[in-house]
Amino acid sequence: MSELPQDLYGQIDPPQRLLMGPGPVNAHPRVLRAMSADLLGQFDPEMTDYMNQVMALYRPVFGTANHWTMLVDGTARAGIEAALVSLIQSGEMALVVNFGRFGLLLQEILTRIGARYETIDAPWGEVVPMEAIAEAARRLQPRLICTVHGDTSTTMAQPLNGIGAIAREVGALVYVDATATIGGMEIASDRWGVDVVTGGLQKCLGGPSGSSPITLSDAAAALILGRRHVEKGIARDDIEDGHGAMIGSNYFDLAMVMDYWSPKRLNHHTEATTMLYGARECARIALGEGLAARFARHAAAGRAMTAGLRAMGLTVFGDDAHRMTNVTGVWIPQGVDGERIRLMMREAFEIEIGTAFGPLQGRIWRLGAMGYNAMKHKVLITLSALEACLKAEGFRPPLGEAVPAAMAAWEMQA
Amino acid sequence: MSELPQDLYGQIDPPQRLLMGPGPVNAHPRVLRAMSADLLGQFDPEMTDYMNQVMALYRPVFGTANHWTMLVDGTARAGIEAALVSLIQSGEMALVVNFGRFGLLLQEILTRIGARYETIDAPWGEVVPMEAIAEAARRLQPRLICTVHGDTSTTMAQPLNGIGAIAREVGALVYVDATATIGGMEIASDRWGVDVVTGGLQKCLGGPSGSSPITLSDAAAALILGRRHVEKGIARDDIEDGHGAMIGSNYFDLAMVMDYWSPKRLNHHTEATTMLYGARECARIALGEGLAARFARHAAAGRAMTAGLRAMGLTVFGDDAHRMTNVTGVWIPQGVDGERIRLMMREAFEIEIGTAFGPLQGRIWRLGAMGYNAMKHKVLITLSALEACLKAEGFRPPLGEAVPAAMAAWEMQA
Repeated sequence: MSELPQDLYGQIDPPQRLLMGPGPVNAHPRVLRAMSADLLGQFDPEMTDYMNQVMALYRPVFGTANHWTMLVDGTARAGIEAALVSLIQSGEMALVVNFGRFGLLLQEILTRIGARYETIDAPWGEVVPMEAIAEAARRLQPRLICTVHGDTSTTMAQPLNGIGAIAREVGALVYVDATATIGGMEIASDRWGVDVVTGGLQKCLGGPSGSSPITLSDAAAALILGRRHVEKGIARDDIEDGHGAMIGSNYFDLAMVMDYWSPKRLNHHTEATTMLYGARECARIALGEGLAARFARHAAAGRAMTAGLRAMGLTVFGDDAHRMTNVTGVWIPQGVDGERIRLMMREAFEIEIGTAFGPLQGRIWRLGAMGYNAMKHKVLITLSALEACLKAEGFRPPLGEAVPAAMAAWEMQA
Repeated sequence: MSELPQDLYGQIDPPQRLLMGPGPVNAHPRVLRAMSADLLGQFDPEMTDYMNQVMALYRPVFGTANHWTMLVDGTARAGIEAALVSLIQSGEMALVVNFGRFGLLLQEILTRIGARYETIDAPWGEVVPMEAIAEAARRLQPRLICTVHGDTSTTMAQPLNGIGAIAREVGALVYVDATATIGGMEIASDRWGVDVVTGGLQKCLGGPSGSSPITLSDAAAALILGRRHVEKGIARDDIEDGHGAMIGSNYFDLAMVMDYWSPKRLNHHTEATTMLYGARECARIALGEGLAARFARHAAAGRAMTAGLRAMGLTVFGDDAHRMTNVTGVWIPQGVDGERIRLMMREAFEIEIGTAFGPLQGRIWRLGAMGYNAMKHKVLITLSALEACLKAEGFRPPLGEAVPAAMAAWEMQA
């Protein structure tokens, strides 16, 4: 312990920073307060009631009547892996709709599972046409079609209307990673006809990272329960194993997670109670606001951010028709050092804006306005600060134009 | 949304229940307060400072100088799977020291990885002699020796002094699941000579489930970095892939988790900020109290609980010489319905005590006194309540004997 300071680094005391990047964003204070409630035993009736409430609260958030709607205990990426490892097995074929970094992540996880896959790609900044997905699905006859809904790496949102019909035609299921859009753009699981959708709290739901809401269609649940292999230590006569291949992960075995979230309450992990309290409050806030109002608020914030950036003389990245409402990419102007601007934004204004990945690293910034931060004043503050920083770094933006343009765009009908 | 109540189930408001089972237990209020701090961007300098502080704070908690000491974002079981999937691969041989349900869990995870294993077993209620481990290791020549430290299913703590020397003799690494003992009994990673140890917050560290501290020896880190395969979406010229087999999980790929916790800050998951704040405060509380004082407090609580139960005429479960200090098993007396007692404890006294698993289900209760609940008054309250419930259910305990016996045992030198 000799290297530790006497005060053990002191009480937690982060700066009050406005997080206007691609996420995480500032959590809604109600979420953080809910997380300070004392714990319960994992099988106490009040705890299992809270679990059932979470199931009910997340169904409308996912736009579904699916019974199996619950949480995976881990970050959004945990939900993605739980979905994939439970849905597909070594040697089976998947089709990946790929238009950004998180499409690459889907491929990466499929590789580790030992699944085969082909991709149908769009250049970064575009989405994949539904006819191209249909054509690839018919040719490939995959077991699973996987796609991201909104990929923050490119700020694009893939249209998903009709994907379920294509999947049913070829006998596939559909998995959707909605981490970056859930709670901010409409997730219409049932209308899209998709089978498994996962999310995270740390973007449009305005909570901390660490819990991944998930919903499963009856078809997905049947497939997964067919792969059920209950642990030896907790096997019971009334729970039968399935005939399918054992799922490659214990922690991400959704059959066991379902048994834990069912009246059987079969012990698996110890539910992350505090994160569940937070996830519950995120959904209560979203439904209390009203989902339609919430989507409109995110759309207004996206319009305002985009209009403000353009009024500053900047070029917004990517295809206008398919932009996510909650995160906006913008080209770093020639001659400007993107990291110096980000540093000044943080040090002078306590505002975080995002850098980028892969082919866009150092070329675009990503500005988010999501969840608790999808508010007019936060968009205006961010634009004002960015204007000042650009000016300080020698770029000559039209001065004083961004704020009125953003205000007008906020009020505009979508 | 038609089925949701208008108040969306209302604010979170759990009963103030005393959790005296095998965990989770009530969180220390300082931990819950720390978790209400606002979020930071995951690469903000204050956030990466907090990550570095967590590394430094958990080294003494693990009894190690290991550089690689960090968090896995998930429950304790996530840490176990991350360790195993990163350390061993399909076809390789492991030796499992098995003396309870969590030894079965290790086998279960190894099976899913495709590893081969043999077990060296003790009956539930005993531990495995070190000579038997040595003999099995010499015969089997495993790549990995896996053991639980304290298995709450049997309340036994496996002695681990000497296991590292055995492993080095046969060229194996050692993995230890210390979920149930970390922060309550000594974890001497370096003195034991073990390579990877994982824990959880929800037992003796007095925090919520959802974050798994982990430490890796240099040898373990070298093995794991030899299996590094960086995701396509974030590959960088300065980070080389290893020649070893790809780790079967992306989320649990400790090579990528290490790159995220290193100055490279290679993006993997989005760190569960609020859980990290909680984990940080758990360690600050443990180190602020002093680890030796904390272990003595848990030992006093265990002595007091055991003495009180015996003074009530009950028979304590398992081998006295290897009992965990923080959880005590006790036989349910003949003619008493264990679940009716647990119900009355909860409904009349708002106290939770634990049931049991597998061969002990319905036969023993498990009473914990860990973390924030390893306190004299909480042990005395629990014993008094249990005495009243046993009397109400027709069992005739010697009345008024448990509390003085527990008080005397609390004061006794270990």
